[in-house]
Amino acid sequence: MQDLQPLLRPRSIAVVGASTQPEKVGGMPIRLLGELGYDGRVFPVNPGADTVQGLRAYPSVEAIGEPVDLAIVAVPAPAAPDVMAQLGRAGTRAAVVFTSGFAEVSGGADLQHALAAQARAHGVQLLGPNCLGAMNLRERVYATFSPIPLAGVPPVGDVGLVSQSGAFGGYAFALAREAGLGLSHWVTTGNEAGLQVADVIEWLAHDPQTRVILVYMEGARDGARLRRAFAAARAAGKPVVITKVGTTAAGAGAAQSHTASLAGEDAVYQAVFDEYGVHRAHTLEAFFRLGYTLARGRRPMRWHSPTGMPADAVAPVAIVTVSGGVGIMMADSAESQGLPLPPMPDAAAVALREAVPFASTTNPIDVTGQIVAQPQVLADALAGVARSGAYGSVAAFLAGGGNALKVWGVLQQTIDALARDPQAAPLLISGVLTDDKRAWLEERGCLVFREPAHTIEAVAALARSAAVTESVLTPSVEPQLPPVPELPLDAKALSEVEAMALLAHAGVPVAAHGLAHDADEAVRIAESLGFPVAVKICSRDILHKSDIGGVVLNLHGAEAVRDAFEQVRRAAGASTFDGALVARMVRGWGEIMVGVRRDPVFGLVALAGIGGTAVEIFRQMAFGLAPLSQERARAMLVQSRVEALCSGHRGHPSLDLDAVADVIVNVSRVAAAIGDRLDTLEINPFIVGAEGLIAADAVITLR
Amino acid sequence: MQDLQPLLRPRSIAVVGASTQPEKVGGMPIRLLGELGYDGRVFPVNPGADTVQGLRAYPSVEAIGEPVDLAIVAVPAPAAPDVMAQLGRAGTRAAVVFTSGFAEVSGGADLQHALAAQARAHGVQLLGPNCLGAMNLRERVYATFSPIPLAGVPPVGDVGLVSQSGAFGGYAFALAREAGLGLSHWVTTGNEAGLQVADVIEWLAHDPQTRVILVYMEGARDGARLRRAFAAARAAGKPVVITKVGTTAAGAGAAQSHTASLAGEDAVYQAVFDEYGVHRAHTLEAFFRLGYTLARGRRPMRWHSPTGMPADAVAPVAIVTVSGGVGIMMADSAESQGLPLPPMPDAAAVALREAVPFASTTNPIDVTGQIVAQPQVLADALAGVARSGAYGSVAAFLAGGGNALKVWGVLQQTIDALARDPQAAPLLISGVLTDDKRAWLEERGCLVFREPAHTIEAVAALARSAAVTESVLTPSVEPQLPPVPELPLDAKALSEVEAMALLAHAGVPVAAHGLAHDADEAVRIAESLGFPVAVKICSRDILHKSDIGGVVLNLHGAEAVRDAFEQVRRAAGASTFDGALVARMVRGWGEIMVGVRRDPVFGLVALAGIGGTAVEIFRQMAFGLAPLSQERARAMLVQSRVEALCSGHRGHPSLDLDAVADVIVNVSRVAAAIGDRLDTLEINPFIVGAEGLIAADAVITLR
Repeated sequence: MQDLQPLLRPRSIAVVGASTQPEKVGGMPIRLLGELGYDGRVFPVNPGADTVQGLRAYPSVEAIGEPVDLAIVAVPAPAAPDVMAQLGRAGTRAAVVFTSGFAEVSGGADLQHALAAQARAHGVQLLGPNCLGAMNLRERVYATFSPIPLAGVPPVGDVGLVSQSGAFGGYAFALAREAGLGLSHWVTTGNEAGLQVADVIEWLAHDPQTRVILVYMEGARDGARLRRAFAAARAAGKPVVITKVGTTAAGAGAAQSHTASLAGEDAVYQAVFDEYGVHRAHTLEAFFRLGYTLARGRRPMRWHSPTGMPADAVAPVAIVTVSGGVGIMMADSAESQGLPLPPMPDAAAVALREAVPFASTTNPIDVTGQIVAQPQVLADALAGVARSGAYGSVAAFLAGGGNALKVWGVLQQTIDALARDPQAAPLLISGVLTDDKRAWLEERGCLVFREPAHTIEAVAALARSAAVTESVLTPSVEPQLPPVPELPLDAKALSEVEAMALLAHAGVPVAAHGLAHDADEAVRIAESLGFPVAVKICSRDILHKSDIGGVVLNLHGAEAVRDAFEQVRRAAGASTFDGALVARMVRGWGEIMVGVRRDPVFGLVALAGIGGTAVEIFRQMAFGLAPLSQERARAMLVQSRVEALCSGHRGHPSLDLDAVADVIVNVSRVAAAIGDRLDTLEINPFIVGAEGLIAADAVITLR
Repeated sequence: MQDLQPLLRPRSIAVVGASTQPEKVGGMPIRLLGELGYDGRVFPVNPGADTVQGLRAYPSVEAIGEPVDLAIVAVPAPAAPDVMAQLGRAGTRAAVVFTSGFAEVSGGADLQHALAAQARAHGVQLLGPNCLGAMNLRERVYATFSPIPLAGVPPVGDVGLVSQSGAFGGYAFALAREAGLGLSHWVTTGNEAGLQVADVIEWLAHDPQTRVILVYMEGARDGARLRRAFAAARAAGKPVVITKVGTTAAGAGAAQSHTASLAGEDAVYQAVFDEYGVHRAHTLEAFFRLGYTLARGRRPMRWHSPTGMPADAVAPVAIVTVSGGVGIMMADSAESQGLPLPPMPDAAAVALREAVPFASTTNPIDVTGQIVAQPQVLADALAGVARSGAYGSVAAFLAGGGNALKVWGVLQQTIDALARDPQAAPLLISGVLTDDKRAWLEERGCLVFREPAHTIEAVAALARSAAVTESVLTPSVEPQLPPVPELPLDAKALSEVEAMALLAHAGVPVAAHGLAHDADEAVRIAESLGFPVAVKICSRDILHKSDIGGVVLNLHGAEAVRDAFEQVRRAAGASTFDGALVARMVRGWGEIMVGVRRDPVFGLVALAGIGGTAVEIFRQMAFGLAPLSQERARAMLVQSRVEALCSGHRGHPSLDLDAVADVIVNVSRVAAAIGDRLDTLEINPFIVGAEGLIAADAVITLR
């Protein structure tokens, strides 16, 4: 892990290219550090001035006469590599380079390379270039040239924010200030010649002052580093919220075609986020709302389930509403998020119906507009469900009711009591409330939203976060990779017989088959397998077997097999011909495809989906990193709808989904065992039938 | 159309059950009418008081001595029908009944029936019961018992709001007030014993003071009335925004299971909304945002397309951003909404690159953080694209830049000039802006949002609204329904041969077939059609033919046909046996299903989707009202992904999609021609092949 202490908690800061004009790039950090109360030492470096903004200036880095923790670099791009060397020689530990004109402009990549090389050679930690810098709000370190903190800073808090984009980072800072969201650190990584977003996430995961990590990224340069960072955050129990736009930093030029062309890549990112329980936000609003929710919200209470719900089920939520219609909107949202809505427990229901005969005690629990006349009804309903033990959380919609004087007084009493009760489920409230009432509620651990649907979204995010934390407690088992024989160095692919053998050895059921070297042998094999059979060309050189007439299906007799053998031998032409694969035709009620391909960022990625015509029409594939865990494989079955095909589809028997997932896990392990040599692995079709999955064809290409 | 003049523009108002206590249900309207400045006459009716809140009180409605336009009724439920009769006899034109305790409570339906009957018998227009009343903000009519207007009222404006739910309506009123969204009328319909949401929509569609209609509904009681209302709004060019929760008013009891059980019904509502261009909002935030957008936004400019884009394409949008990353988020959103993003025209691009060499002139147009140093760059880029004629709208993201003094001054000049230029495309702006800057921009026709994605959502909504308005200019052709023979009164279904004949006659291609009465005839038919053929039992009594062994497919010779005939005759058992249908097997590369079923609210509804295994796994059916228009059928092909199957799927030829849509239109017309007798019509499978769609099976059930 990179230690960001010198960058984010420096005892001394040099500003190289310091300007006497506070609004200039080289002047702003000096102004900010001075005005906002940084209490370390600041050394302006400017050969043309004796003092800079009231501080003694130094003609060079060397002239400071002592090593500094952090240097802020605001010199023209061509001078930056030399400055970096000087900093290194002077013992500087970290440097932020604001200057643009590096890899983001054509012809600037070499200069960036030189800058990074100097930093590396001298052991200087590099943030940037072309970045907006970094801040530590608690220590009042403002290593940025953005004037935005001059207009005010957010409260010191426990949300760490890291953004590849400076403009996004600046805007996020302003929004955090407006929303009163407390920040610990703020880091923009720019061109990432040194530190990457992943390094900052990993450090924040270990930083005791950070509890939630907000991330904006355009693309990862190093998938393994990002995964390590996510793993560190997960292990530390710190939720990560990410906004990842649908493109890579490199390809920002043709943005209008990005979403389409990189949809696959985005699905891989999503699979990585899913794997580590990273929360994803697609809008700025959702980004901040999730930050607020995860920083301030309480996880669902443990609940008891009289109806015998499985212990690992999602915690149920009670919806308490003054409007039946809004309650149903919230219920719709809960259902789409998979949150159970069991009805009000009997005692609480009886009490509510006694007070308001036309109240609804199913869930959503509708206390109706009566609350204005009978405010105690609302308070009692909230307390009743929060203390019932039947719910993990309580989501309430008050409309404008909270502002009615009588209602507010009664609510205050109840909520104050609930806040002191460790057995009461957390409360999430929506409605129109004045700022002071909102603050009062938040001080008592309630989350407050304007939009009723956001209370439900927050309950789901907190439940997910709790589940991620718990999953860390279960030690994960290192996957056993199957042995793979030495693969010939010059081979571009395995033959189908070789691929089938590898798979079968790893526990992947394959269609019964044999390799025939002549027509007589083909017939003998077919007769021993039983008809009908398929006859297929077997050659490392021929991947698209059916395109050249190398596949004959559904053969019912010896003569047909003999003819087919001759046909596929002729089809081989001048290519290597290992023989003909004679395979039993597999029957089932559907087909899926499972594959593994190489992603440029994350390496081997497994995918699964419904096969046949639907695969091209609906394109609902699910992705996961190879080798897959059993949990991830199960999640992929759901995401791809393969689960539906295996669960009593059209009256067919239901398969053991754990066994189906195991097969997919085993496929991914074959790919992982081949490792660096693997280009792609594809099983298509994988027949879904009464015996489970059986591979009817397999292609493995190498690199 | 119901005339709501007496309800919403009454010259005089009686309050029956008037209370001397202003906070009571019968007291609040008198207080509101007095304090908020209603200038018609108000007659409190209270036999126990001489004056009520300073007004002379009357012992009865008759005692008023003159007919009033509107009566507000706040008497106990059992007394309400009598009061209604008195009102009728006194010549009252409209009545709002606040009282609850009618159909929403068990046993209250009869009382509601009596109330409605009295209103009908005496020609009194009835709003409610169990409603929160109505308001006309311009005329200061506050016929409500909600105290919410006492805390302030929204500006008078041109948004009409109608809500079935009182609590929702009250909350919406408070949110409109907070957002400064100008309202014309506000109506809650409650139990809808008289006026329904649809009646209010229709009246608002004709009201000159309303331009946009916001609707909250739980369910429609009368589909035809709702369609007429939507049609009126569309014809008047007034956008309708609707929040429809996933349930019916009747079934609010078991809300937690609603979403799932009524998903089909919700899809029908969605199809109706789509048909009339009604905008749907799933959250309160989206509801108001759409209201703001459609009330204040300008439709996209006409643009010229140098690249030969079709004239009916969606207007392109220019994204101008100070942050590349946020620009890409906006581009992702534009792409998902189907908004084209052509690059910046050459002249504007050259100018931008001269000013900022590292700016991006593709679209999103990234003027970069340089705007703080060079504010004119942003202003010039905005003016350049807005005036280029290449875009329908301009969506800009300013981050916090608008608040920088230098930037704001330059922006003001440019935006003021653009606002006066009738050739300039409308501007939608996102970023952090102070309230006064926001107001300044809105006065100049800009829409202003916090969230960048909302500018894109707004562009899409305005484009859609413009398209709906234009579609009204094209006169719609009354569909020609095919002739249908007299159907026997006692038949529960047609036989397949009858169904096929009806369809073929209406222009639906069906598999070539004949009806055989004996095995010899079956063979003769098969030989004349050519093999392979299918043989199927033909009987009005047997709907599930294959379940009883009544279908034999893929027959290749005379002997097989003969055997099959005998098999299906035996399968008929004691049921009517009209003979065996011998049909040519149809070949294709896929299958779809098309059907028509009866919806309890909207009548005949057509559906289409991919058939086979996928139909059950992905369940992506599209719906439309029967008979379908050609446009709706085309939209259904896209929504259901049938279009993909017909457009060069896996190297197969592309079909003429207009012809495919025509076939689906013709199916829906057969159903409409059968009309009231039709229960369901289903063609499954409809084979997709080189000759287009061919029906391979058809079931028509009657009622």
